[in-house]
Amino acid sequence: MTMKERLDADIAMIEPALSRYLSEEQHAGYDVIFEAVKYSALAGGKRLRPVIALEFCRLCGGDVEQALPFACALEMIHTYSLIHDDLPCMDDDDLRRGRPTNHKVYGEAVAVLAGDALLTRAFEVAGEANGVPAETTLRCIRILGRAAGMNGMIGGQVLDMESEHQKIALDRLMLLQKLKTGCLIHAAAALGCTVAGKTDDKTLSAAETFGNKLGLAFQIQDDLLDIEGDSAVLGKTIGKDEKSEKSTFPLLLGASKCRELVRSLTEEAVFALNGLGSDRFLADLAYSLIGRES
Amino acid sequence: MTMKERLDADIAMIEPALSRYLSEEQHAGYDVIFEAVKYSALAGGKRLRPVIALEFCRLCGGDVEQALPFACALEMIHTYSLIHDDLPCMDDDDLRRGRPTNHKVYGEAVAVLAGDALLTRAFEVAGEANGVPAETTLRCIRILGRAAGMNGMIGGQVLDMESEHQKIALDRLMLLQKLKTGCLIHAAAALGCTVAGKTDDKTLSAAETFGNKLGLAFQIQDDLLDIEGDSAVLGKTIGKDEKSEKSTFPLLLGASKCRELVRSLTEEAVFALNGLGSDRFLADLAYSLIGRES
Repeated sequence: MTMKERLDADIAMIEPALSRYLSEEQHAGYDVIFEAVKYSALAGGKRLRPVIALEFCRLCGGDVEQALPFACALEMIHTYSLIHDDLPCMDDDDLRRGRPTNHKVYGEAVAVLAGDALLTRAFEVAGEANGVPAETTLRCIRILGRAAGMNGMIGGQVLDMESEHQKIALDRLMLLQKLKTGCLIHAAAALGCTVAGKTDDKTLSAAETFGNKLGLAFQIQDDLLDIEGDSAVLGKTIGKDEKSEKSTFPLLLGASKCRELVRSLTEEAVFALNGLGSDRFLADLAYSLIGRES
Repeated sequence: MTMKERLDADIAMIEPALSRYLSEEQHAGYDVIFEAVKYSALAGGKRLRPVIALEFCRLCGGDVEQALPFACALEMIHTYSLIHDDLPCMDDDDLRRGRPTNHKVYGEAVAVLAGDALLTRAFEVAGEANGVPAETTLRCIRILGRAAGMNGMIGGQVLDMESEHQKIALDRLMLLQKLKTGCLIHAAAALGCTVAGKTDDKTLSAAETFGNKLGLAFQIQDDLLDIEGDSAVLGKTIGKDEKSEKSTFPLLLGASKCRELVRSLTEEAVFALNGLGSDRFLADLAYSLIGRES
């Protein structure tokens, strides 16, 4: 199976599961919230985080079916963060994954609630995981909470807002991106290992290094695409960073140094996989992200 | 011990626990989010939901210490919902618990994130509960998720928004308030029983009736206070419902019928407690809410 075929197979597990988890019984009068949630959560996207969760589970010898609820919970958390990030009071974005942002379609109030609903449902879905020992499920819930919380993604989002319209130092930008992007990618890897029952220090430390390095590479590549990419291919507004005077890696380091950094961070991420197993998929996936156009 | 003394004793357990759960390690650069979260979560308030959780646990013969993390998680969820409800795109409120609302102090973006952070932390705190069997903790997490989700509090909030500037039918208003207020009060009671290990149908059904009836009585009393209360005592803006042309119970039924309903619903809530235990506290607490001025 090629990398692409295996990626497609993973996504073919993730998409229907996500859809199933978000198809609760609906009641007349407030069905707009179910619609708004599905509008953003079932809009495609790379599904990078859930794929990493499934693949770390597989690499650690676990049953990927058991990782599915946690992988989907993570994607719900990622999607809620995008909906709230796009709000007028935050990044004020009109376009996401090639379509109007949630608040552009449903209004701000419903968009706030759709984000809230996805975050809530993420923990509910995790809490309902079938066939996983209760202690393992609780470990996974704590991983999700820590990664998405104030010392994780939300902290990164705050740092991001506080850093607008000013030039910030490189180490602050690294921390910002580690929290904002790295934490959820690290969580994806850690969830996979945890479901597979591999929670020794060596495994979890490899998952952390992989997540942090790949998350940073991913973010630097994002910054590069924001100045060099094609809005139609990206499916989101480009040139936003410059407009909002955000400190980005290309601004601080130059594009050429950034491209180098994306490559070396990806190599370090892949190197961290040594010792976990002999599977090439995650390495191929990581390298494929360097060449991405969206 | 009088009702008041016992209530004070419960709150003396809840306040420091809430404060402890929200005092994570803070990092320079994004400490404003920790501040914003504590500003709203540690601003007093009746703590009705966590008190009910502790007292149902006690009534069912459980260890109240074990109910504490879930009681606090529920209060965090309640507080997050208030922060988001007060946002300009929602109810646009300036005053809450006698102080400027979260977004008035920290700005809209931080207020959105403070709500998100409280919701996230609620599930993390629940997932970290000490000394409670893992299966019981998972049951509690599912109770929290269901009560706070799209077929619970969030659905009620959507119905509420969709019902502005129009006269709605009484049964729709009842559903709205059941979801918006009843679900969390029901969850409080159900969490208490669950931590105590009493999850038989009879107990959980009593908890549900108590929560729904008391939640509705509480909301009708809130509507009455909005037209008859004193803003300074209430700690929030009054006359808001009329201004936003909201359908309220006094508008649909008249104030006198509403006062009757508050009394009869409270009696029904108290009646549901029969068979759970002989403790008078919850009955006294319920009746005390009829006479409240805030």
